[in-house]
Amino acid sequence: MVRTLAVDLNCDLGEGFGRYNLGDDAEMMRWITSANVACGFHAGDPDVMAQTVALAKAQGVALGAHPGFPDLQGFGRRAMTLSPTAITHAITYQLGALEAFARVAGTRLVHVKPHGALYNLAARDEVTANAIARAVAAYDPSLILVGLGGSKLVGAGIAAGLCVANEGFPDRAYLPDGQLMPRDQEDALITDPEQVASNAVRLVTEGFIGGDQSFRIDTLCLHGDHHSAVDNAKLVRRALEEAGVEIHPLAWILGV
Amino acid sequence: MVRTLAVDLNCDLGEGFGRYNLGDDAEMMRWITSANVACGFHAGDPDVMAQTVALAKAQGVALGAHPGFPDLQGFGRRAMTLSPTAITHAITYQLGALEAFARVAGTRLVHVKPHGALYNLAARDEVTANAIARAVAAYDPSLILVGLGGSKLVGAGIAAGLCVANEGFPDRAYLPDGQLMPRDQEDALITDPEQVASNAVRLVTEGFIGGDQSFRIDTLCLHGDHHSAVDNAKLVRRALEEAGVEIHPLAWILGV
Amino acid sequence: MVRTLAVDLNCDLGEGFGRYNLGDDAEMMRWITSANVACGFHAGDPDVMAQTVALAKAQGVALGAHPGFPDLQGFGRRAMTLSPTAITHAITYQLGALEAFARVAGTRLVHVKPHGALYNLAARDEVTANAIARAVAAYDPSLILVGLGGSKLVGAGIAAGLCVANEGFPDRAYLPDGQLMPRDQEDALITDPEQVASNAVRLVTEGFIGGDQSFRIDTLCLHGDHHSAVDNAKLVRRALEEAGVEIHPLAWILGV
Amino acid sequence: MVRTLAVDLNCDLGEGFGRYNLGDDAEMMRWITSANVACGFHAGDPDVMAQTVALAKAQGVALGAHPGFPDLQGFGRRAMTLSPTAITHAITYQLGALEAFARVAGTRLVHVKPHGALYNLAARDEVTANAIARAVAAYDPSLILVGLGGSKLVGAGIAAGLCVANEGFPDRAYLPDGQLMPRDQEDALITDPEQVASNAVRLVTEGFIGGDQSFRIDTLCLHGDHHSAVDNAKLVRRALEEAGVEIHPLAWILGV
Repeated sequence: MVRTLAVDLNCDLGEGFGRYNLGDDAEMMRWITSANVACGFHAGDPDVMAQTVALAKAQGVALGAHPGFPDLQGFGRRAMTLSPTAITHAITYQLGALEAFARVAGTRLVHVKPHGALYNLAARDEVTANAIARAVAAYDPSLILVGLGGSKLVGAGIAAGLCVANEGFPDRAYLPDGQLMPRDQEDALITDPEQVASNAVRLVTEGFIGGDQSFRIDTLCLHGDHHSAVDNAKLVRRALEEAGVEIHPLAWILGV
Repeated sequence: MVRTLAVDLNCDLGEGFGRYNLGDDAEMMRWITSANVACGFHAGDPDVMAQTVALAKAQGVALGAHPGFPDLQGFGRRAMTLSPTAITHAITYQLGALEAFARVAGTRLVHVKPHGALYNLAARDEVTANAIARAVAAYDPSLILVGLGGSKLVGAGIAAGLCVANEGFPDRAYLPDGQLMPRDQEDALITDPEQVASNAVRLVTEGFIGGDQSFRIDTLCLHGDHHSAVDNAKLVRRALEEAGVEIHPLAWILGV
Repeated sequence: MVRTLAVDLNCDLGEGFGRYNLGDDAEMMRWITSANVACGFHAGDPDVMAQTVALAKAQGVALGAHPGFPDLQGFGRRAMTLSPTAITHAITYQLGALEAFARVAGTRLVHVKPHGALYNLAARDEVTANAIARAVAAYDPSLILVGLGGSKLVGAGIAAGLCVANEGFPDRAYLPDGQLMPRDQEDALITDPEQVASNAVRLVTEGFIGGDQSFRIDTLCLHGDHHSAVDNAKLVRRALEEAGVEIHPLAWILGV
Repeated sequence: MVRTLAVDLNCDLGEGFGRYNLGDDAEMMRWITSANVACGFHAGDPDVMAQTVALAKAQGVALGAHPGFPDLQGFGRRAMTLSPTAITHAITYQLGALEAFARVAGTRLVHVKPHGALYNLAARDEVTANAIARAVAAYDPSLILVGLGGSKLVGAGIAAGLCVANEGFPDRAYLPDGQLMPRDQEDALITDPEQVASNAVRLVTEGFIGGDQSFRIDTLCLHGDHHSAVDNAKLVRRALEEAGVEIHPLAWILGV
């Protein structure tokens, strides 16, 4: 039997704040299956969240929370030494805030993916990973936890009884141990659209081999906050389709 | 038939932030029936909210949201000209954030009472009142909306199909039209504990007559953020009991 | 003797924050003579301020502070009821913060122009206007205070012994009393570049007649935060030059 | 010749924010010679800063800036991975903001001492230390830089050409390498007033020996944010006086 190759395409959206816009959310929504929506700590505000939830619902994109560190100036990309309890509470708060807009809009949260420095910390640090996973499990055990493929966060999610998704980054360089190369290092960001597209295909068709692990990639992250974001998304999507990869929402991919 | 006189006693709690404490929440909880918990905009943070929800649950105090303007420096006491949509979204966000902690703690929200300048604005201004009432009704129509007795907010809550509670302030001076005298005016705050207690009894036994309205007071606000707060609360409680007034949670008072 | 017609061209710059950019400051700097730099309350952060001050110095544009309400989400465009003392302190703080970057860069502040809702409030409300003017005079009496032409702020500046500049807005509609039409009203923003340019010429050559006053316009505000900002600035500049109006920095215009 | 033993007594003050107070600044001012005033990032706001500067001036206490990480919720006690440039800019901003209040009050800044996690990071990490020292030197090379005795920050200050002060903590436990034991470790905070007082005397009379260094302690930090702060301060002061140690401001101690 031939197993169907399929992947979810996710994008960080709703990253504006007040007067500030970031990316063309409405257009990006056309090319993805899952939206990770900022919850007001590192980006997003109540108005932006309401608009983004409405967009996701209108375009049939699955809604996820994208909680981050409370650091708007740093866009959540600066590590902060919060206690595990403080991390758990920060996740709880942001999940509830976003779900309120989902409820009012008549839709619901499907997944959770930590943002930026919190995501990276949770990929490497078990204490942080557990603080996040426990927050999600206590809030709603039916939520899917998205983490860096093969990382501590994925492990913590499984330990907490959550359904987890292994994420891959076609536009980021990886370190030998399977972690992402930090953004401030040269060559960390892959900007050539063709290379991004071929990485996407490879990640899905070959799975990921990093550190001592190999696993299937359930979802690919497409970045939406630069000017060629939409073109890249189209290219990735076409390359995947040409390689026989189906595009489906996370819940379909994970069979939940 | 003699109707039982009864009232709810509410207090604004969870008003700390980070390193800052305000009031002795654990002690105040012993003397009240409803806690209005700050939601992180004018006071409160995820850690404070988690602790306050846990306290309320442990002491059997009904939990309510106390959303305010996004102005920590001004403690939500400075009016801000948010659009009605922005007010609705700010309320939605704060309701969801607090309810997340209630859910994790195994309890639930019973009521909503706007805070500070938002409360005062909603008492006078129909547009603001409607923006709040609609946010609450869209989020959860079973929540009780608490507003200044006889004010626009109470009217907006009724129009939105919500169960409403008329609130009285035994330690605040009223203007002839039934509005509260602004805090920065002399004599706005009544500090004599005996007078506060007798005001409490009068508000409950006589009801309120302000402007062109008269109505029953369903809940009395006790302030918890000054050093004699607990002593005042005990005094009010005793005076009410001596006057034959029963103390019950809002849901009992309103029969819901 | 024929008096030379001349005007300063100012623009609000440095309005980014963290990850967020707003407008092409480097390009706008080429067409203006005075930069009003956000100070971190409604926009701007220490990094943005350092960059903007460096840009202004490099391009020989006079540096001014653009203090606003502490409301990043509202971009300082929502009125807040700060006490006069709180306004004075907020101005003092922002002046010092920006001047620190000027000092380190080897340049200095020339003017101060309140931003957004604070500007509008100061134009109408004498108490606010005085709170601002006194803050500026106490901090550095050699600073030029820029206010809406003929407004309370200009009057307060004169009363405080400051050198003042009457500002005109070629891309905004005026109310009959000389105030700006609020941004949320239809037709408040004039978007036709030709009309903006002709308004600019008219404001400078005819002066302003509003309410019961007439006066010379010392500086014109060009907006930099929309996509055709630079084109508009060039057009205004050319129209002024064709009408024989010289473009000079504020200090030249006011002879200080 | 017998060298006079003398030390400066400093305290972190102005740590309130909006509605929140922390410590009895007016009383603490009576027992110290140098005040480190929060600048609005981790604590303090324009109103608090104005009041604290006025208090320091009235009581003849030398004024210093106490800049911290931009993290009010964490009170600046959570490490954040700011770039060196961002640290430099954050220091510049806060120095200017506080100096504005000093200027308006007719006084001036004497010293700078980083706060909390920034202080601790600068004690260990040369890059952070240099980012701070360069910010201070570029802003005003006559400012005294206060750092943990013998730490990287003191070294960076010397390298930047600044006058530096070695600080000692009588109420904190030290690690063998001369760093402070982190606050969240058991026994990190010494609460017995007698022990604090004897530590103070020992630090001044014996100097500090930590890691591979020994040096004189120029200033002792007294904490002002707990309920027995003032009693502790009196006790330390008396113990020092009984041991023949004179109490003088930093500028006297360092002979500048």
